Amino acid sequence: MNETNPAAGPDRYSPEHIRLPLRRAGIDTYRQPVLYLREGCLVCRAEGFAALTRVKVTCGGREIVAILNVVTGDWLGPCEAALSDAAWQALAPQPGALAGFAHADPPESAGVLRAKVFGERLDEPRFAAVLRDVMTARLSDIELAAFVTACAGDRMDLDESVALTRAMIEVGERLDWGPGPVLDKHCVGGLPGNRTTPIVVSIVAALGHRVPKTSSRAITSPAGTADVMATMTNVDLESDTLRVVVEREGGCLASGGRMRLSPADDILIQIERPLDFDSDGQMVASILSKKVAAGSTHVLIDIPVGITAKIRTPAAADAIARRLAFVGEAVGLRVGVRYSDGSQPVGRGIGPALEAHDVLAVLRGIPYAPADLRERALDIAGAVLELLPGVAQGAGRAQAAAVLASGAALHKFMAICNAQGGFREPGVARFVRPLLAASSGTIACINNRQLARVAKLAGAPRDAAAGLVCTLREGDRVQRGDPLLVVHAESPGELAYALEYAHAHPDILTIAGEY
Amino acid sequence: MNETNPAAGPDRYSPEHIRLPLRRAGIDTYRQPVLYLREGCLVCRAEGFAALTRVKVTCGGREIVAILNVVTGDWLGPCEAALSDAAWQALAPQPGALAGFAHADPPESAGVLRAKVFGERLDEPRFAAVLRDVMTARLSDIELAAFVTACAGDRMDLDESVALTRAMIEVGERLDWGPGPVLDKHCVGGLPGNRTTPIVVSIVAALGHRVPKTSSRAITSPAGTADVMATMTNVDLESDTLRVVVEREGGCLASGGRMRLSPADDILIQIERPLDFDSDGQMVASILSKKVAAGSTHVLIDIPVGITAKIRTPAAADAIARRLAFVGEAVGLRVGVRYSDGSQPVGRGIGPALEAHDVLAVLRGIPYAPADLRERALDIAGAVLELLPGVAQGAGRAQAAAVLASGAALHKFMAICNAQGGFREPGVARFVRPLLAASSGTIACINNRQLARVAKLAGAPRDAAAGLVCTLREGDRVQRGDPLLVVHAESPGELAYALEYAHAHPDILTIAGEY
Repeated sequence: MNETNPAAGPDRYSPEHIRLPLRRAGIDTYRQPVLYLREGCLVCRAEGFAALTRVKVTCGGREIVAILNVVTGDWLGPCEAALSDAAWQALAPQPGALAGFAHADPPESAGVLRAKVFGERLDEPRFAAVLRDVMTARLSDIELAAFVTACAGDRMDLDESVALTRAMIEVGERLDWGPGPVLDKHCVGGLPGNRTTPIVVSIVAALGHRVPKTSSRAITSPAGTADVMATMTNVDLESDTLRVVVEREGGCLASGGRMRLSPADDILIQIERPLDFDSDGQMVASILSKKVAAGSTHVLIDIPVGITAKIRTPAAADAIARRLAFVGEAVGLRVGVRYSDGSQPVGRGIGPALEAHDVLAVLRGIPYAPADLRERALDIAGAVLELLPGVAQGAGRAQAAAVLASGAALHKFMAICNAQGGFREPGVARFVRPLLAASSGTIACINNRQLARVAKLAGAPRDAAAGLVCTLREGDRVQRGDPLLVVHAESPGELAYALEYAHAHPDILTIAGEY
Repeated sequence: MNETNPAAGPDRYSPEHIRLPLRRAGIDTYRQPVLYLREGCLVCRAEGFAALTRVKVTCGGREIVAILNVVTGDWLGPCEAALSDAAWQALAPQPGALAGFAHADPPESAGVLRAKVFGERLDEPRFAAVLRDVMTARLSDIELAAFVTACAGDRMDLDESVALTRAMIEVGERLDWGPGPVLDKHCVGGLPGNRTTPIVVSIVAALGHRVPKTSSRAITSPAGTADVMATMTNVDLESDTLRVVVEREGGCLASGGRMRLSPADDILIQIERPLDFDSDGQMVASILSKKVAAGSTHVLIDIPVGITAKIRTPAAADAIARRLAFVGEAVGLRVGVRYSDGSQPVGRGIGPALEAHDVLAVLRGIPYAPADLRERALDIAGAVLELLPGVAQGAGRAQAAAVLASGAALHKFMAICNAQGGFREPGVARFVRPLLAASSGTIACINNRQLARVAKLAGAPRDAAAGLVCTLREGDRVQRGDPLLVVHAESPGELAYALEYAHAHPDILTIAGEY
């Protein structure tokens, strides 16, 4: 019984009918789509738009939601509109195509977000509503930050972790490898040089198991496994190619970038990273959703524990391990967890090519290969194998050691690289210089985070050969003038900059003892 | 005992020494300072900057922290840098001045933010650390959203509300009116047309009390008190002028925009608004910090309660009232709270000039003046007066009614306007058209939020004369063809757009009954 009169008449009119031609602004605003309109233009006045208004832009049957930046200079005219790179990519208009502009509707999941902030527990459909809006950029970065915060700390119980994991799987693609075990491993990050994955995958695949490994590029670290592998072979495989590689060799060492496995997680991570809240609930959903989407059935999670690692205490490791086991069982994954020493780096090199050299040395059985990297890789490969039914405790490690020693693992690694497009030796940097010890004594402590920062300042992972080499470990003795670490860089500027930072932070490698 | 060798040598070098000339980008990014650098420029490469990196920009002894947008088009050269309007204002460089660029240090309060997210209670110094970083734009919008979320719902106890209120007062300026009571009133918003403030201030000042009222412009509503007063007099007073007005007339009706009272709150509100979390803790800190900063001693808070008002239930109103009383006492304010009917609009007009006409009608004692606005203003003025020692219950309202009836309140209002720069009659809109009832029956329900939206679509508050007039109230009978409301606009387009929206939302005024 609710009815009112239409606003009929000759001047019936909607500002949505005002259309402006689109052009590229030539501005990279990362993943946030931005719309640029001239101050005081007809659209701004008709709609009451101001800077940061969320605007629905429609063009050629597609629509996006963009944040408005108001142009006060004259690089944009009053009768045109410009889009940031992210917005242009998402809307994909023809240059000069006419677009319509309107206030964006509040996202469907605004109520869900609000409920979580006010302490309600969310189920899978409500998490899925949030993630759908995440995927279509209907939630602003501010709203994503609110969601991440509302789920941080102890505000997500185990059932919610399961629901979030399932919702993350739901919104992405999913690989299916048919019946039988599909093995995988994952490290809860934070330890420079800890590049066991290529070795573990080669060992496990050499033993005839399926291990279709996709890895990420570095986000905040000096190298991700995909960066390291990219110094030796092609890692950017389309799903079809990846499937061929795995069918032929049992395993692959590819980048997960093109796979769209748990893509909502990729977006949330971009918000979680600057906030750095280390939420167990989200970390577990992030890890396990990607594993399920990748078609894995058995996953070994390596958790390095150490004061400058990501997980700092055994209690924190236990809490994550419990959550991993609970959620893993709920989503049908066999999850094994292994704690490892997270107090100092692993191997010698830190940076894509330098870590690749370490990996190759281990696979090739070269005498000077870093023993800590080899032992860790064998431990992890053994633990992966022991997830399988019928493999006894200890038997997995023995199998792993045998295929590494026999050269079968090296052979498998080369075969995988060849299947992915061919193997090449990783490069070396143009400029190399050591940082020398200013005093004599014993290495008391190594700061993983600062060591990673030196490698990044030297140019890693952008410059594949950049980074550093550090062979010292806690308890090693050094004499004044001994090299503490060696910086590798592709430009003298970056070399000096990294060394300057290292010099300004003497607790990267703390020397205790006589002068 | 920690020492390492300096990276001495001829190529010693720091990217902070690379300086680029600054120019204005001519882009309004609201309050977020944005730095624009060309993709692949020397600074980006040397520092490893990417889109959204937080960059410290230094120039002429000043520094700001800005978010980086990477320019991929050719409007910016590789050897120059551009700043958004907010960044340019904050850094205030000479055009072409050379600036340095470095990674911004993590904000001092990042740890505090993290602690709050993980459930710790914050004290005043820790809230103050956050607010200092808010003021200097060292916290990004993402971090502000995390802070707002971490304090939302029931996550801020009463002591924290006190600490946050004190910290907010601390970071801003504070007016001092000398000894004796300084009166004020505040409405917890959400009710269109509820423009009692000019009437209440005129009554209270006419009775010889001090009431230095500063009000805000509309944020999400069709009009704020400052918008309404701006249709009749000058409201943008510097503090010196404001002081002269108050000394002469006892009261003022100015905009708080230039006062820098609780300025951190002004920034937080910009984040809270799109999130719309209605956090009691932050709302109380926001209201009371501004009152203390304005030098008030006695404050009456009006809380309209209604299903489409900001506060929807009596229980929610009680919770806010308790918190207001507790925090008020802790910061030395005498706080009175009054609940009022929030189910439907007050007065007839919605929009700056239309509300001003209602205010003038009440002050002038015109017979057709809206009785509901007059009664509410008298109730509130009475309650303000009864906060004073020696004024009995009911006596305040009687005093208020007397000065309104005698014309003394009108006289005081005109005197205040004259002191602020002169009185003028509010304008009228060029285009006016009614929305007609499509059926006969009884008004069952009025939706405040949608009514406000119609007024905004008509152009309020940007166009001062725009908005709507609605004289109907719940229970009123209408015949098919009667006007339900009348839209006022300055352009035919906006007139039609507002009516079109109203037609599409028949539950703005729900008519129950026969056809």
